[in-house]
This record gives sequence, structure tokens and C-alpha cells, in this order.
Amino acid sequence: MIRIGIMGYGNLGRGIECAIRQNPDMELRAVFTRRDPGTVKILTEGVPVYRAEEAAEKKDEIDVLILCGGSATDLPKQTAEFASCFHVVDSFDTHAKIPEHFERVDKAAKGNGKVAVISTGWDPGMFSLNRLYASAVLPEGADYTFWGKGVSQGHSDAIRRIEGVVDARQYTIPVEEALEAVRSGAEPELSTRQKHTRECFVVAKEGADLMRIETEIKTMPNYFADYDTTVRFISAEELARDHSGIPHGGFVIRSGRTGWNKENHHIIEYSLKLDSNPEFTSSVIVAYARAAYRLGVEGAKGCKTVFDIAPAYLSAKSGEELRATML
Amino acid sequence: MIRIGIMGYGNLGRGIECAIRQNPDMELRAVFTRRDPGTVKILTEGVPVYRAEEAAEKKDEIDVLILCGGSATDLPKQTAEFASCFHVVDSFDTHAKIPEHFERVDKAAKGNGKVAVISTGWDPGMFSLNRLYASAVLPEGADYTFWGKGVSQGHSDAIRRIEGVVDARQYTIPVEEALEAVRSGAEPELSTRQKHTRECFVVAKEGADLMRIETEIKTMPNYFADYDTTVRFISAEELARDHSGIPHGGFVIRSGRTGWNKENHHIIEYSLKLDSNPEFTSSVIVAYARAAYRLGVEGAKGCKTVFDIAPAYLSAKSGEELRATML
Repeated sequence: MIRIGIMGYGNLGRGIECAIRQNPDMELRAVFTRRDPGTVKILTEGVPVYRAEEAAEKKDEIDVLILCGGSATDLPKQTAEFASCFHVVDSFDTHAKIPEHFERVDKAAKGNGKVAVISTGWDPGMFSLNRLYASAVLPEGADYTFWGKGVSQGHSDAIRRIEGVVDARQYTIPVEEALEAVRSGAEPELSTRQKHTRECFVVAKEGADLMRIETEIKTMPNYFADYDTTVRFISAEELARDHSGIPHGGFVIRSGRTGWNKENHHIIEYSLKLDSNPEFTSSVIVAYARAAYRLGVEGAKGCKTVFDIAPAYLSAKSGEELRATML
Repeated sequence: MIRIGIMGYGNLGRGIECAIRQNPDMELRAVFTRRDPGTVKILTEGVPVYRAEEAAEKKDEIDVLILCGGSATDLPKQTAEFASCFHVVDSFDTHAKIPEHFERVDKAAKGNGKVAVISTGWDPGMFSLNRLYASAVLPEGADYTFWGKGVSQGHSDAIRRIEGVVDARQYTIPVEEALEAVRSGAEPELSTRQKHTRECFVVAKEGADLMRIETEIKTMPNYFADYDTTVRFISAEELARDHSGIPHGGFVIRSGRTGWNKENHHIIEYSLKLDSNPEFTSSVIVAYARAAYRLGVEGAKGCKTVFDIAPAYLSAKSGEELRATML
């Protein structure tokens, strides 16, 4: 049994808890929280909830600690810190800062004989894998990543910070014509605006200036100004009824050419359609927790990404079983 | 430079030759053939063509020998044989016999300190990878593999063996309704007939009994009897004009559930749309030739499949570059 600890019990932590239940070779041993543990009610019976500060004391009871904090402030500190006591897995997703995160975590993990798998999930994660495999197989071609249709937490939060907004939900939507152009093999150059649209459902305070709110959203730099954005005002009841899920997904497409004169075209497409973004992310993380544990048993140490881990480590099946049933 | 040799110069061998040209860290050093080398004209200038029997003598000039023979009789013998002299890569695709092929090749490769990568290509190969990743991430769910639309060489050959047939081309076509049912998350149980149809273009001898040919095709056990099959008689000119390509492709779909009560559905879909089956297969093989070489440099030995090789080994980019650009 692989003994798992969860650091942080929000949407992602709960997703990890659910995923562990689907993997019979794993058991949840503890949840750690920055809240008062007495106020945190988890789903699994009989599993203790501790204060985050107590984690290091439990290092002999846990094989892999899964870090469920955010990429902005939690993980840059936590992953390296806990890699001194545990094999760890995180879903650090600030793409531009992955190289420095890797270096920091690698040093800590190597120094303590632990395996740390960073930036798992689906992007970075499964999407990254597909970008790598596809470009290695078709070195001449173009890569396209589309996200959605799905809820962007960051964009929803940005709308909520606008004066007069009570709540909001933002969907990122890939443009169907752009997808079709890519699938045709035409290798189009696509602007930000051509790839995705943004759809916002906003609950406004009574009497708020809706025109101003809409303008503030549509002109917000980085978040909305470069996109065709739709804003719809709805009631709190409608938001709760129609937009309470956290779906997401997307597409990674490689369009490439082979042949002596590059006369043949090929399209490799990978897509995800997810009812729950945090639960799917959790499912990927848990598979990499298995890999971290097994690599650790073999004596590996240091920081790894999805690129560095042979696929067989993710599966509970043996090499013989995999060759007989899945190859 | 990774020095590559090609054993067997048919469609696949020519595809390997083209793929090497797209990978600047590789060079073609020799082609080996069972034909008279004087009759084999290859595309790359200045590269020698030798008799197959001469391969072992060239072992110091070649790092990785790519085996382009067939799975029925060539590879079961060749892969183990040449793994005593070279790192080797094959595309052995008789799924049911992979375990015994693995054992045989593993013994030969281990005994001689070589790396042998077997069963690369797209199925087995990229499709297998996607089956493994998807089932590891979503342990509760169902897997579906669809092939096509594409030319099946085996089925085309089976038609050509019928009395009165001059030439034929058979397309395997996935049933769109079945694909949609799978994508809906319904996890349908699908019979052979429900998943694929078969379309045959046949050139018959003048005066041949077309009704008999059509009946012989449609009732042929294993090949056609379990499928809805369409037979169209066309002229040799039409066959050459409209059906000279070797396209293929297909879909690997995992439909799975997560959540404490399995309340959320997820669909992972991987698809290929290939203008040239042998050229795409070759492109995958060549990426795994790079992996075989690098693993060999690190001191690895024995038989490997796509499951055993970390993705980073396939790419010409360094770990740093991959993390900075693709993760």
C-alpha cells in the first residue's frame, strides 16, 4: 500500500481524496490544513486531519505527500520544503516559472534522497506530454493548444473584483473555425482573438451600472481586452443553477509533414472533455504519486516532470500485464 | 550524430529514410536488403546498400539498426538476431505474440549489452501509450480503439487472393454513430459490426463472375463476415487514380468517472489522421531509435517497449529546453 498525505483541503485536495479511493494500491493516511483541523470535515472515515505545521513529524507514516496549494504563493515554498521529508507531487502551473521551480525542488529532493514530481495535471501535464510526443514524432510541423470549453477560475476572480459585481463565472471557449482550420492541415497562424472567445455570466448588485461593468470587463488588459468577450447578467439563482460546475478541457493538435518532399500531411489530436477540472487534475496527480513512490523504491531522487517518467510507472499493472493487455 | 542502419527497403524502409532527413541529429549509414543490392536504388545519395547477410560485419559503423521486415516471419527471427550486434527498433505488431517476442528479444539484448525497442509505431505504439496513460489516470471507465478511415493491407491482400480478382483496395471505416455514443460518456458495449464497416474497391478480370466475387468477399471468415461490407467494382485506371495512397488513422477514447459517488464523467480522446501509414509509423520508429541510442549510452540494456521509455528520450531537445518550451 502506498501511503498518501494531502496538504491542503480545497477542491483539489477533495479530488485527491476521491481519486485515492479508485486506486486499490493506495491509502489516504492524513490530511494537513492551515485551517483549524477541528473545522475541516473530510469524506474518508477514520483518517486524521492535522495542522500543516505537523506534517514533518508524520514523515514515517506517509510515503508521498500531495501538495494541493496554489502556484502563486504556496507551491514555490512548499514543494521544496516538503521534499526534504517526503516524496512529493505538485501541480505547479505557472508555465514561465517552471524552470526555476524545478531547480529549487531538485536541490531539496536530491539532498534528501526524495523524488519530487512537479507540474502534473493536464496543462502542464497530459497536454505537455502530447506536445512532446507529437513534436518528437513529427519534427516538421506546428503545435496548437486550445483550452475549453471550461471555467477559468482566474478570469472569474478578475470579474468578481469589479465594483458592483456580486459573483461571476467565466468560460473560455475555443473558436470552432480555428479548430477546423488546424485540423485541415493548413497550419494557420492564429491570433489570440482567433483562437478563443470568453463568455462571462455576471451577478450584479441591485442598481449597479451594468454598462460600466460590461465595459470594465471587456477592456480589462491581459484578461479580456485581446478576446471577443460576451457578458451576460443573470440572477444569483441562475448562476447557482446553471453554472455551479467546474468543467474544462481542450485540444492539443500537431499538424506535421513527412515524405522526401514533405508531400504527406498528418494530424495528431489529443482532447479532454472534463466534467470536473479539479477531479481530473487530481486523478493525474495520483497516478504520478504512484510513479514517485516506485521511483523512490528504486532509489531515484531529485525533481522529475512528466517528461522524465516512463509511462509504465503510472499504472498499477505489472510490465507483463501491460504488454499482454494494452500494447 | 546517431548512425542509423535500415534492414529491409520497402514502404517502411523508405519511410525511415525520409524521417531520418527530418532529424538533424541522425544520419543514414547503410541500407541492407535481401534483394540483389545492385537492383535497389535508394533516395539518399552516397549511402551504400548491402546484402542483409553483411549487416553483422558493419556493427561498428551503425548505432541503431531499424528493422523494417514483417511481423509474420521476419521480425520474430531478426529482432533477437540483430540485437546481438546493434541497438535495434522494430514495429512488431502481432499483439497476441508480443509477450513471447519480448522475452526472446530481451534475452538476446541483455546478453549483448544492447537496447531493443519493440512494437513501436502507432498501434502498437502511440495508441498503446494513450491506452495506458488514460487508464492509469481514469482507473474506472472503458477503453475504445477505432481504426480508420484507412487502408488495411492484410484485407486488401485477402481480396486479391480471390479467383477473378486483379487488384483490390480495402478501407476500414469507423462507424460515426459508435464514435458519438462513446464520446457521450454512455460507455456502450459495441460489437465488431457496430464499430467498423469495410469498403472494398475491386478490379476484376474481364468476364469474371462479379456476384461470386462479392459473395466470397462478404462471407470471408475473420476478414469480412463479421462486418457490414461494401464491394465496388472499378477499373484498374480508377484504382490507380483514386486509391493509390496508404492513408490510415483512428481513435483511442477513454470514458471514465471520478468523484466520491462517481458523479463526474470525463472523455480522453486521441486521434490520428495520416496521409501515409508507413511514413507516420517510420516517424515514430525513428524517435524511438533516438531513445534506444540514448538509453544505450547510459548503459541500459534489454528489451523495452514504449511503456518503459520516458518521453524526454524521444526528443532531440534537452531537459532544460523541454521544460522551458513544452511543459
